[in-house]
Order: sequence, then C-alpha cells, then structure tokens
Amino acid sequence: MRAITIAEPGGPDALVLADVPDPVPSAGEVLVEVAASAVNRADVLQRMGFYDPPPGASPYPGLECSGRIAALGPGVSGWEVGAEVCALLSGGGYAEKVAVPVGQLLRVPKGVDLVTAAALPEVTATVWSNVFQVAHLRPGETLLVHGGSSGIGTMAIQLGKAVGAKVVTTAGSERKLAACRDLGADVLVNYREQDFVAEVGSGGADVILDVVGAAYLDRNVDALAVNGRLVVIGMQGGVKAELNLGKLLAKRAAVVATSLRARPAEEKAAIIAAVAEHVWPLVEAGAVRPIVDRALPLGDAADAHRLMESSEHIGKILLTL
Amino acid sequence: MRAITIAEPGGPDALVLADVPDPVPSAGEVLVEVAASAVNRADVLQRMGFYDPPPGASPYPGLECSGRIAALGPGVSGWEVGAEVCALLSGGGYAEKVAVPVGQLLRVPKGVDLVTAAALPEVTATVWSNVFQVAHLRPGETLLVHGGSSGIGTMAIQLGKAVGAKVVTTAGSERKLAACRDLGADVLVNYREQDFVAEVGSGGADVILDVVGAAYLDRNVDALAVNGRLVVIGMQGGVKAELNLGKLLAKRAAVVATSLRARPAEEKAAIIAAVAEHVWPLVEAGAVRPIVDRALPLGDAADAHRLMESSEHIGKILLTL
Repeated sequence: MRAITIAEPGGPDALVLADVPDPVPSAGEVLVEVAASAVNRADVLQRMGFYDPPPGASPYPGLECSGRIAALGPGVSGWEVGAEVCALLSGGGYAEKVAVPVGQLLRVPKGVDLVTAAALPEVTATVWSNVFQVAHLRPGETLLVHGGSSGIGTMAIQLGKAVGAKVVTTAGSERKLAACRDLGADVLVNYREQDFVAEVGSGGADVILDVVGAAYLDRNVDALAVNGRLVVIGMQGGVKAELNLGKLLAKRAAVVATSLRARPAEEKAAIIAAVAEHVWPLVEAGAVRPIVDRALPLGDAADAHRLMESSEHIGKILLTL
Repeated sequence: MRAITIAEPGGPDALVLADVPDPVPSAGEVLVEVAASAVNRADVLQRMGFYDPPPGASPYPGLECSGRIAALGPGVSGWEVGAEVCALLSGGGYAEKVAVPVGQLLRVPKGVDLVTAAALPEVTATVWSNVFQVAHLRPGETLLVHGGSSGIGTMAIQLGKAVGAKVVTTAGSERKLAACRDLGADVLVNYREQDFVAEVGSGGADVILDVVGAAYLDRNVDALAVNGRLVVIGMQGGVKAELNLGKLLAKRAAVVATSLRARPAEEKAAIIAAVAEHVWPLVEAGAVRPIVDRALPLGDAADAHRLMESSEHIGKILLTL
C-alpha cells in the first residue's frame, strides 16, 4: 500500500508518500481501508522527531481515520467487512490501510459522510475524556477553552454548550472568534488584545482546557474558580513554569496534564465507549457537528502540515484517499 | 467562659487564657461544653498572624474538640443535651464552650474515651476528604504519606492500610519511623538520609499526601505513578516551585491543593457524614485508632505549641479542660 512516511525528521517535506507493506490485523483488530485521515499537532511533533510513536504503534503518522472495514483479525466479532467506521489510532492513519483494535472503532454517525467522519475521533475522545471524565464539567459551570478555533476547541465549545455550561474561549483573530461565536461560545477573548483572566470574571472558570502549558500556567490558576480544574493537554507555550501552590490551595483547585496517545488500549476503549454513548447521540441529533477547515489529498500531506503550522485553519484539516 | 486568646500575634506566649463572653448557638448549631481540643499546624500560623479565621468563625484558635452538648440552638433536632460528641470547628476549640454547626458533629465512637475523641475530627476529615474523596485511593494502590508521624500522617497510614493500599511513609527519625511501622506502614523512609523517590520505586505512588509543598513539588511529581494524584495540604517547605508539565503529562497525573477550614458549611457536613459512614466503623472495630502524643491542660497551650513547633511529637497533642 501507499503511506506517508517520515524519511528523515524535519520540515513538512520530510513527509514522503511511499510504497510500504500492508498492515496485518492482529487478534482483536480489524483492517480498515482508509477514506480519510486528519492532521493533529502531535503529527507535526512526530515529523520533527520530538514525539516517537508508542511501542507497538505504526511508524507512520495519523492518529485517526475513517473508512471501511476490509478484513477482520482473529477473534473479532460484532463488526462486519464493509462497515463504515471511524477510529482512534496510535498511528498509521496517513495510509491506504491501517490495523485498528476494535475498542477504538466507532460506527460513522448517521448524518455524517464517510470522509467528514475522520474529523471526529480525536476531538471527541480528547474533549470527552478530559473535560468530562477527568474534569467532570457540570451543567451551569463555566468552561474556558483556549484555542477555540482549533479542532479540539471547536468540539469543546459545542460539547460544553450541549451539556449546559457557560463557555469562554480564546483565539487570536476576529475571524476565528466569529467562528467560535457561531458554535455557541458565550464569551470571546482575543488573546492578542485582551487578558483572559479579566474576561473570565471574578467567578472564575470551573474547568479550563489548555493547550499552551507553561506560558499560561500562572494565569490559568488565576482564572480558576474555587474547586476549579485545569487540564493541560498541550504545551505549545513551553513545559516548565512556576506553580503557586498557595493560590491553588486557596481555591482548592487541581492541575492535571494528560494525553490520549500513550494510554493503554483498555483505557482508549473505555473512552471510545463513552464517546459512543454520550457524544454520538448529540452528533446524530445535529447538536454537535464536525468542523472541517478543508480536505487535501493524502499526497499533499506536506501542505496540510504547513497549514496546521500557520494556525490559519478553523477546525480540522483532513487528508483524503 | 475562659478561652485561649491571641493577645498580639507572635510566639507561643501570645496565647493568653482570658475571660471572654460565652458563645451563643445560632440556628442549626449546638453549644458544646468542651472536654478537650487538639493542636493543629494551622493554629500555629493563626497565632503568628498568618492565617486569619474565615469570616464568621470564632476568633480563638482550635479546629476540633470533644465534649458534651450543653444547649441546642434554634431548629436543631436529632441531637440531645448531654450527648458525648466530637466536632470539626472553624475555630474556637481552645475554650470552655464552643458553638458548632450540627453538620460538623460526630458522636464519640464506641471504645474511645471523651478526651481522646478530640484527636479524631481533623485527621479523619482531612485524610478521608483528600486521600479518598479527592484522590480516590483504591485497594492495591500505593499511598505515599509525607510526615507519617504527624497527627494526619498516623491516620493516613492506618486508613491506607485499612482499605488495602500499600503505604510508604517519610519521617525524620528512627523513633518516628518505628511508630509508623507499628501503625502498619510497609516502606519507611528517613528523609534525612534517603531519597523518597528512589524508595517509592519504579512503579511510583498512585496517591501522595503532602504537607511540604514547594520544596517537594518536583520530586513528588517524579515519585508519582502513571495516573497518580498528588494532594498538597500544607506548605511547610514553601509556596512557589517550578512544575514540569511535561513530566506530569507523561504520567497523566494531577496536582491538587486543598484545605479544610475555608470550605463552606455544606461541604464540611458532607465530609463529616462520609467520616461517620466510612471511618467510624473502622475506629469502633479497632482497625484505626487515635494516636495521642500527650494531653496538656488548656492553660499550657503555649507549651503545646512549643511541642508542635519542635516536631518531636508523634500523633496528636491534646488540650484538656
């Protein structure tokens, strides 16, 4: 099959379409013929050589895909060849075929086309696991979403509103903030011009979903409500920062940092099951929708990475086959 | 009545026994005739002027007591004059009488004498709320208790063992570590001579209960297991320290900082109800017991504070009337 390989870690042109052996599904896996994959920040880090795939994962980039089941591995039941699915992957989505543990498979939701479904697995699993399973966002609470126009941001805004939270979001341009408003965000903060701590207000944010890390740590603690939960899922603003435990203690607050990719298969399966139970009905009802900036052919993966690195996109960037 | 007052913030001799007006129980409160109170680190900070009582609290120190109900405030049912109780207080325990919200009252457990019961409310509420309600310690997990010979430490070791956890604890002398071993601690670490990160071992601690704060933050993160929870409830080693979010993310771990005193009455009541349900049966069965270093008369509160500040005690220091 053809797959995007990383010839030598580096810039976008390190991504090279090449002929590679087909993957073979192990016990408990299915082989998916890929219709589309999607670009994640982790793919960019992997391309640069900063984020090696976990042991046992495909060496090719791509943390999610949609497609049709082409074959069942040993011991698989409950799935059938030809089924339209999307999936959370440990890697290997930038390819014509990928082997997927059945616990990471989801049926394509009604009302979503097969290609667009590739926009759903990472953002729904990331937002559900962090905002709901880790941080326990409840109706009536305030959710602060940093980077509201990113793929994760667009899903976090929608899921926050769907459960009855107030959503405050940051973005770097009026165009992006307008997109966040259209998704339901209640308070829009242009981080280039405004202080998000002041805009959140004195009540504070009960939950903060953060991709900036060190550069925002102290201000995120300032923005937390009493009993607030800060969940750091990215470190675009660095890794190390001073934490004021006194501020945290005065608020009885928590700082959690998590990632999805390194979790063991059983934890991923539990998250995917929760997404199927809690998020899929909202997607099928139209209350929550995949936001796609654009779709490019797999062979243009380098351009897709340039777009991701420019941060000019709103929502997901897809790669189609 | 007589109470220990703080004439002017300062050293132990700032504690002055004086005649003050009797407290009057408000609606939902009872008046307790105090048999004993106990010394907490927060009392020392309050004496020094660093920890003002929360709004509405008694100005006198003392965060817990035992005694007999002397009068019922308006609207109180389910409690009777003469009942032997112990209680979590927002202040005012160093006194002959104190008004207590009924949500913070506990009946003296069977098998514990009235004076000794004053050793239970703060340590049971602190350990249950932090180790179990916040950090969700589960059977088979590893709990690291810093300062295992303190009042909180002695209760954390016992409750950790009672639920089937492995308990690692630190203390500063062989005498204190022997006391921790007698309470059931599995791994003893003399922090003056050993590195607790190495002693916890490669599996790491699932839950860490910490009173040191800044000076231990980075090493506590190093000592955490995957999915580990660090709960900071004291800052004897400072307030501000560098947090490495990358380490935290690699472990999908959480840093939480909490306190008991500033919580609203309904949260305290929920904690006390959980203590009555989960901890009192263990005390009555003898599986968990109050550890008392010594009891001094209320008039010797200054000596009791000197002992607390010397850190030579093991378990609780009581003040009796």
